[in-house]
Amino acid sequence: MTNAPIFDVEFQAKLEDLFRWRRDVRRFRTDPVDAGLIEHLVGVAALAPSVGYSRPWRFVRVDDPERRNTVRGIFEHCNAEALSGYTGDRAQLYAQLKLAGLNDAPVQLAVFNDDATERGHGLGRKTMPEMLRYSTVTAVYTFWLAARAHGIGVGWVSILDPEAVCRTIDVPPSWSLVAYLCVGLPIEEHAEPELERAGWEQRENAAALLLSR
Amino acid sequence: MTNAPIFDVEFQAKLEDLFRWRRDVRRFRTDPVDAGLIEHLVGVAALAPSVGYSRPWRFVRVDDPERRNTVRGIFEHCNAEALSGYTGDRAQLYAQLKLAGLNDAPVQLAVFNDDATERGHGLGRKTMPEMLRYSTVTAVYTFWLAARAHGIGVGWVSILDPEAVCRTIDVPPSWSLVAYLCVGLPIEEHAEPELERAGWEQRENAAALLLSR
Repeated sequence: MTNAPIFDVEFQAKLEDLFRWRRDVRRFRTDPVDAGLIEHLVGVAALAPSVGYSRPWRFVRVDDPERRNTVRGIFEHCNAEALSGYTGDRAQLYAQLKLAGLNDAPVQLAVFNDDATERGHGLGRKTMPEMLRYSTVTAVYTFWLAARAHGIGVGWVSILDPEAVCRTIDVPPSWSLVAYLCVGLPIEEHAEPELERAGWEQRENAAALLLSR
Repeated sequence: MTNAPIFDVEFQAKLEDLFRWRRDVRRFRTDPVDAGLIEHLVGVAALAPSVGYSRPWRFVRVDDPERRNTVRGIFEHCNAEALSGYTGDRAQLYAQLKLAGLNDAPVQLAVFNDDATERGHGLGRKTMPEMLRYSTVTAVYTFWLAARAHGIGVGWVSILDPEAVCRTIDVPPSWSLVAYLCVGLPIEEHAEPELERAGWEQRENAAALLLSR
């Protein structure tokens, strides 16, 4: 006997809308976001699954302007390095992409995994130790979806040297960076990824998504 | 100008209910699940975010009884090995846990990451190559949430030798195992994780979830 909620067809459809309209946002309004809402969303993120109930995610709000500047510098360096790996039209296209909202996003969150957590007593991660970080990934995505449902956009910046970010944010040595998130009100709403709209990569045919053996 | 959907407070609350009642399910009814629904849910999973729009996830439905038997054998072996790493009360508790629904789940899906995909042209994963597998993790979790909204339970089995599973399912050499999913109607519904109910790990204090720097 449970009091489990009923998820009806209307909710199912709306949930798919949420997945469809969740975007990786890089263009933010600078308007502040209520700090209580961010705290609430981080609490919601803690409902994510975790291997062995380990809950290894650690959310850090980065407010210090100097630390933010350093992170932006790390991004710019890594982005220039990445650009140098492309040639011709692809390099030209890459140079035009907007890949992070670090200048404007009013809220920035660094999300780490505590690689040394004893929570969960190691259950479920002996043969697949990557499960610990995968758990943190689901927490990031839970935050992202919940934020979008509140009209808040999230952009996941990965063009970063993760160890340099760890030093900048000054976290314990056992923490590794999983995500650096830009968070704020989006300037635009789209159902199509920015990289598709910019011509970087096409939507693939949906066929053959499910193989069988 | 967009036709972006509005997510109201009722949806926000229901979404939190979904996160709260999503469980890692290990106890399944053997009733079949409509194949069309599984295909639909895999299509929904493809709305997940992916680094550089790479969409590296590969879903494989495992139906062949011999392959399923082999996977079950891999689990049993890895689980016995894991048990041997615990002592005393902890070992006794571990031995009593039900950690997979491989005997009863009517649908089993192996989810791989294509480590060699050229989609996305490497964008966003030069300094953090793990972003590719993280993208597949978000697809798994999207499937999981959408399934739960349809009353279907999902259990993520990680007590497996991933390379042995790749050989068993016979996938291309560039594919690596991210998740092996048991899927079906759950016998019970709970808001608390099974590992919490079984006394393996406690719910932590929600305080101090969000640090700041």
